[in-house]
Amino acid sequence: MSELIEKGKKAKRASRELARYSRAKKDEILIKAAKALIEKQDEIIAANEKDINAAKESGISGALLDRLTLGKGRIESMAKGLVDIAGLDDPVGEVLFMKKRPNGMTIGQKRVPMGVVGIIYEARPNVTADAFGLCLKSSNVALLRGGKEAIHSNMAIVKVIQSALEECDAPREILQLVEDTDRKVALEMMKLNEYLDVLIPRGGAGLIQSVVQNSTVPVIETGVGNCHIYVDESADFDMASRIVINAKTSRPGVCNAAEKLLVHSSIADEFVPRICAELEAKGVKIIADEKVRDIYPKAEKATEEDWFTEYLDYVIGMKIVGSIDEAMNHISHYGSGHSEAIITNDYSNSQRFLEEVDAAAVYVNASTRFTDGSEFGFGAEIGISTQKLHARGPMGLKELTSTKYIIFGDGQIR
Amino acid sequence: MSELIEKGKKAKRASRELARYSRAKKDEILIKAAKALIEKQDEIIAANEKDINAAKESGISGALLDRLTLGKGRIESMAKGLVDIAGLDDPVGEVLFMKKRPNGMTIGQKRVPMGVVGIIYEARPNVTADAFGLCLKSSNVALLRGGKEAIHSNMAIVKVIQSALEECDAPREILQLVEDTDRKVALEMMKLNEYLDVLIPRGGAGLIQSVVQNSTVPVIETGVGNCHIYVDESADFDMASRIVINAKTSRPGVCNAAEKLLVHSSIADEFVPRICAELEAKGVKIIADEKVRDIYPKAEKATEEDWFTEYLDYVIGMKIVGSIDEAMNHISHYGSGHSEAIITNDYSNSQRFLEEVDAAAVYVNASTRFTDGSEFGFGAEIGISTQKLHARGPMGLKELTSTKYIIFGDGQIR
Repeated sequence: MSELIEKGKKAKRASRELARYSRAKKDEILIKAAKALIEKQDEIIAANEKDINAAKESGISGALLDRLTLGKGRIESMAKGLVDIAGLDDPVGEVLFMKKRPNGMTIGQKRVPMGVVGIIYEARPNVTADAFGLCLKSSNVALLRGGKEAIHSNMAIVKVIQSALEECDAPREILQLVEDTDRKVALEMMKLNEYLDVLIPRGGAGLIQSVVQNSTVPVIETGVGNCHIYVDESADFDMASRIVINAKTSRPGVCNAAEKLLVHSSIADEFVPRICAELEAKGVKIIADEKVRDIYPKAEKATEEDWFTEYLDYVIGMKIVGSIDEAMNHISHYGSGHSEAIITNDYSNSQRFLEEVDAAAVYVNASTRFTDGSEFGFGAEIGISTQKLHARGPMGLKELTSTKYIIFGDGQIR
Repeated sequence: MSELIEKGKKAKRASRELARYSRAKKDEILIKAAKALIEKQDEIIAANEKDINAAKESGISGALLDRLTLGKGRIESMAKGLVDIAGLDDPVGEVLFMKKRPNGMTIGQKRVPMGVVGIIYEARPNVTADAFGLCLKSSNVALLRGGKEAIHSNMAIVKVIQSALEECDAPREILQLVEDTDRKVALEMMKLNEYLDVLIPRGGAGLIQSVVQNSTVPVIETGVGNCHIYVDESADFDMASRIVINAKTSRPGVCNAAEKLLVHSSIADEFVPRICAELEAKGVKIIADEKVRDIYPKAEKATEEDWFTEYLDYVIGMKIVGSIDEAMNHISHYGSGHSEAIITNDYSNSQRFLEEVDAAAVYVNASTRFTDGSEFGFGAEIGISTQKLHARGPMGLKELTSTKYIIFGDGQIR
């Protein structure tokens, strides 16, 4: 039996026991696991050093190496993450409705765990603890497959958490790591329908696309954010500037950062020079259509490809549009359905934008940067879904659950 | 451009217009389409005759031929189906919650259409009108791909409905049929992520598995029902008999029919002969384990394969179990997660069964046959989902929708 199938079987078995745990039991495990991470941080750091050395040898550096590195501070924040999750409400067991049918039968819909959640991720070992915490709190067993660059770190973290599970008399299979980091095994995991109830990729666009393309297990796609801000004719310029600067520059590398700015033609002569100067002062490169370049010649010429691109950098695409319809058509064609904003003081345009723009989050007069589980008040966040099935937008613990119907009869037949 | 891509593009475009329609407009279309089906039934029946003749020539007969055949009665019931859907509440536009965040921003979650729904089905032309009605009422454009056996019927039905759309000044692309019935085209449709938001297979297990295995578009799996009834030690025998007979024999060919009967050992000597006699009187063949056969030797010997099988026929698998745990373990191993029932008068066992059995619908003291959209009070039914993502159990119009977050700000930045 392959490692994967063996672990899949064990995961399925453990999921039945985990489904019976009370919130108190789950929180106890989370707190124990957090303590164990702190107590055994030397083991984790030693394992992490192996990964770091291997990464350096293979020429990895910069942001990738930084993400891989676990210092005392990062381990503490992993532990704090678990403690925070313990503080969140239990999503499982809630009855969403219950009603009596005409034949006297009572039907209820109850929130239940998914069962076994598979997570495929890259070289960020902190995802290991985080994914465990979110899955456990939603009564799901986690089967993780991390990147090979972080294998020693991941193994060490899993070992520490498994020791905490055992201390709490819980099956260690509540958290398992697939240790074979061959790409073939990841592909095999994407077809593991018998043991996995859902598969969540966490990482870059390449990983996510590979999972979407290859998985027969139901996938929750977390995604790309080619987010637009449309500055309408009636916009307050101060507000528009403040929001554009915030959405573009407060953290350019995240999916809810603005990537494109659309400006109504009737205000372009006044607004474009002003926002361009402010963006440039923040180090943002401007790539634009011809109309913008007529007003602001320093801007680079945009290609068709640019309008589709999520830069994740100090770069913005800028375009002048003749109407809200042109803005919405552009967003519909080039957008990724993540977060879209209009800056306006026009009632009817605000309503149309909210109604007609098809995205996970649609804003009037606020920064796209708010598309985030904790900003929305959900506590934890598993990711931001850009698909329409099951979950859309920031996903909290609830999105890691399913439902079942429970029926109380007294002999009813049909 | 292939037919599929062209229709995909048109569907996407039409979905933006449809998203703006009021309930009144949608209901107007449904009523017009229903009328058109009645008025133009001769066209439909003539087209259907071509399909029937072709089917007869290729040797199709029996149930398959019956399903393919559209008489006056069937067309009337298709039309009535559309009128009924017009009477249901509009699922779109409901705001599921709305709250003010500490920074003064208001966040709401609103129910919105999926966009474009793909449906792949077999030789039942009535699905064509039904799928159109459900999609339209949930503001979704439908792209249908029916079986080649029903192609002339489907084309005629689509043409009639498209004429009704045009009469209402609605784009005819709200309903489109993929006319190329080559299997390759179905496979291509399963990868049409750019234009399809969700894909729903409607048909037999083979079709559903093919879609699950090949689709990169998110799928809602409707499914197999290997449903169990467990008769507990404390069961009322009259109630148990009534429910078993109803669940097995009221309509054996449907997914919510019981396929297996598990009986507690302490009541087996009394209950097994009684229920076997009743089942046999209804023409049900009994396939059983050794313990049942010791009591009732006429039963056939069950193979391992039998416990996994959905017979969809006058056949039941019967097994004696030593405890509720053995029953639940059996269900967990062999069940398909559709509908499972316990007949009991024991409080603690009823609670355990409801809590621990992992299925779309879990019953105490009622027939599994109730797992159905209209029995649950949902009005229409698209199918019964046996997956855990997005929808589980009978799916109504709500399950054909997604959500989006709408955010009302006054200049908030992060």
